[in-house]
Amino acid sequence: MTHTVERFSGVLSPVVTPFDDDLKPDGERLAAQCRWMTDQQVGLAVFGTNSEANSLSVDEKITLLDQLTENGVSGDWLMPGTGCCALSDSVRLTRHAVDAGCRGVLMLPPFYYKGVSDEGLYRSFAEVIERVGDSRLRVYLYHIPPVAQVGLSLDLIERLVTDYPDTIAGIKDSSGDWSNTQAMLDRDWDDFRVLVGSESFLLQNMRAGGAGCISATANVNPAAIHRLYTEWQDTSADAQQVSLNELRSIVHTQPMIPALKAIVARYSGVESWRRLRPPLVELTEAQCGELYAALDGVNFDMPGLAAGAT
Amino acid sequence: MTHTVERFSGVLSPVVTPFDDDLKPDGERLAAQCRWMTDQQVGLAVFGTNSEANSLSVDEKITLLDQLTENGVSGDWLMPGTGCCALSDSVRLTRHAVDAGCRGVLMLPPFYYKGVSDEGLYRSFAEVIERVGDSRLRVYLYHIPPVAQVGLSLDLIERLVTDYPDTIAGIKDSSGDWSNTQAMLDRDWDDFRVLVGSESFLLQNMRAGGAGCISATANVNPAAIHRLYTEWQDTSADAQQVSLNELRSIVHTQPMIPALKAIVARYSGVESWRRLRPPLVELTEAQCGELYAALDGVNFDMPGLAAGAT
Repeated sequence: MTHTVERFSGVLSPVVTPFDDDLKPDGERLAAQCRWMTDQQVGLAVFGTNSEANSLSVDEKITLLDQLTENGVSGDWLMPGTGCCALSDSVRLTRHAVDAGCRGVLMLPPFYYKGVSDEGLYRSFAEVIERVGDSRLRVYLYHIPPVAQVGLSLDLIERLVTDYPDTIAGIKDSSGDWSNTQAMLDRDWDDFRVLVGSESFLLQNMRAGGAGCISATANVNPAAIHRLYTEWQDTSADAQQVSLNELRSIVHTQPMIPALKAIVARYSGVESWRRLRPPLVELTEAQCGELYAALDGVNFDMPGLAAGAT
Repeated sequence: MTHTVERFSGVLSPVVTPFDDDLKPDGERLAAQCRWMTDQQVGLAVFGTNSEANSLSVDEKITLLDQLTENGVSGDWLMPGTGCCALSDSVRLTRHAVDAGCRGVLMLPPFYYKGVSDEGLYRSFAEVIERVGDSRLRVYLYHIPPVAQVGLSLDLIERLVTDYPDTIAGIKDSSGDWSNTQAMLDRDWDDFRVLVGSESFLLQNMRAGGAGCISATANVNPAAIHRLYTEWQDTSADAQQVSLNELRSIVHTQPMIPALKAIVARYSGVESWRRLRPPLVELTEAQCGELYAALDGVNFDMPGLAAGAT
């Protein structure tokens, strides 16, 4: 029996993870941040690269997921990252996500061993799908070779889509290589959702038949990115893309994840948002000053954040 | 108060991990394999790269460690890998290893994020050491840039050795770059044990003041590698090194980890040793045939393995 789950399209944010002064994740603060995000129609790719997900244990992620649903975050918005290096971890976390009602999961390949075969990667995904064994499961593959150093070939994706057509629902393409995104769209897999990993490709992706984006910058600029998603056929679309790119380029002047957290800290008024788990480190005061000055120069704001996040 | 723990020198094996037909790790079989290894005076770097450690959950590693000590494997021989991507995982596993009486741990840096700073890596190791907070802890750093893609600079190591002289006990250098090994030996840190990641550098390392090696091939050729370690000042040493290299080059004709497991399977008579967790895959029958024929060509044997491992 096939379980009907509507596939994701739109804009999702790899939500940054708040830590307390002992570097423990703060589930209530994360839930508030997620509600602020969904108020702007932006979905929740929690436990992504920008969430420092791989700096969290599986137990910590399971606890956070429970805290999100207990604090009013609906599974309809949730696409948690559940792909770990260990098969047993990926199975456990994915199963928990399905049971928590998440509409999808974003799955990294195992990323410790490099130069692994497509056969090995196929088995990794297939074993997770088979062991979870739940018709509600929807997997979005996560292709991010610049970080994971283990990518997903078109042939591998095609084999997975062919063997698990109801489960393999789409991909986040963070290759930064438009020709790879275009090649996936060209294959025209049935209802396969291609989400680009940066809003800088959003308009191009929508025009080519893609489904949206999952972007770091959606942590700080969700409303404007979502607006382009809804208005991509409007005459203002190109100008909107230029404006999104401008903000992104400002954030990109600093290391991305510390910069996102520094911005959330400033506009929420909650200084502790700046904390990161090692091996990442927070921006220096000088970096923060440069970043904030640049944002002031474009009249940047995050309306409503202070109310939700404190 | 300083706790006296003798630091490792000699030959250690990153022991391969046996899986049952559900791909669960088999602790009793691993214990038998470890006893076979220590009978030949080779130490146990369990949960290393060749052990598929990152394909195991922390819970699975904790269970295996308990099964080893319950099955007659002494902590004096044990240097389990305990470095994970998540700080919380590294702390938990390292603390368990210390409580289990392990004489040392081998610690990878967090390896998901690439291009991280020395400051971030310093904090990663320092946080684990501080949070475990146990004077019995001895950390051997694990430098394996070809796989982890996150390496440890000489300045980072020096900072750690300086701040934690009783805890930072040595390093496994799997860079494959002798000039890096030599540079560490040249720094002459007090009682810092430099173990090379391949026995092909063993003689060179011993002559330069190093402490031994932790090598994949020690899974299948432990006695001969240990013999060179004890006889490196003997006139036969260069010939012994040539002989070790010859066997290593045979194993290297195939993907390393599947090849090691195929060899253990053949000489133990236990076919299930060939199993690997995805994303790694077993050798094909043709690859096995080539490997076995090449080993027969040099009259290779693994005496006593069948008795211990079945």
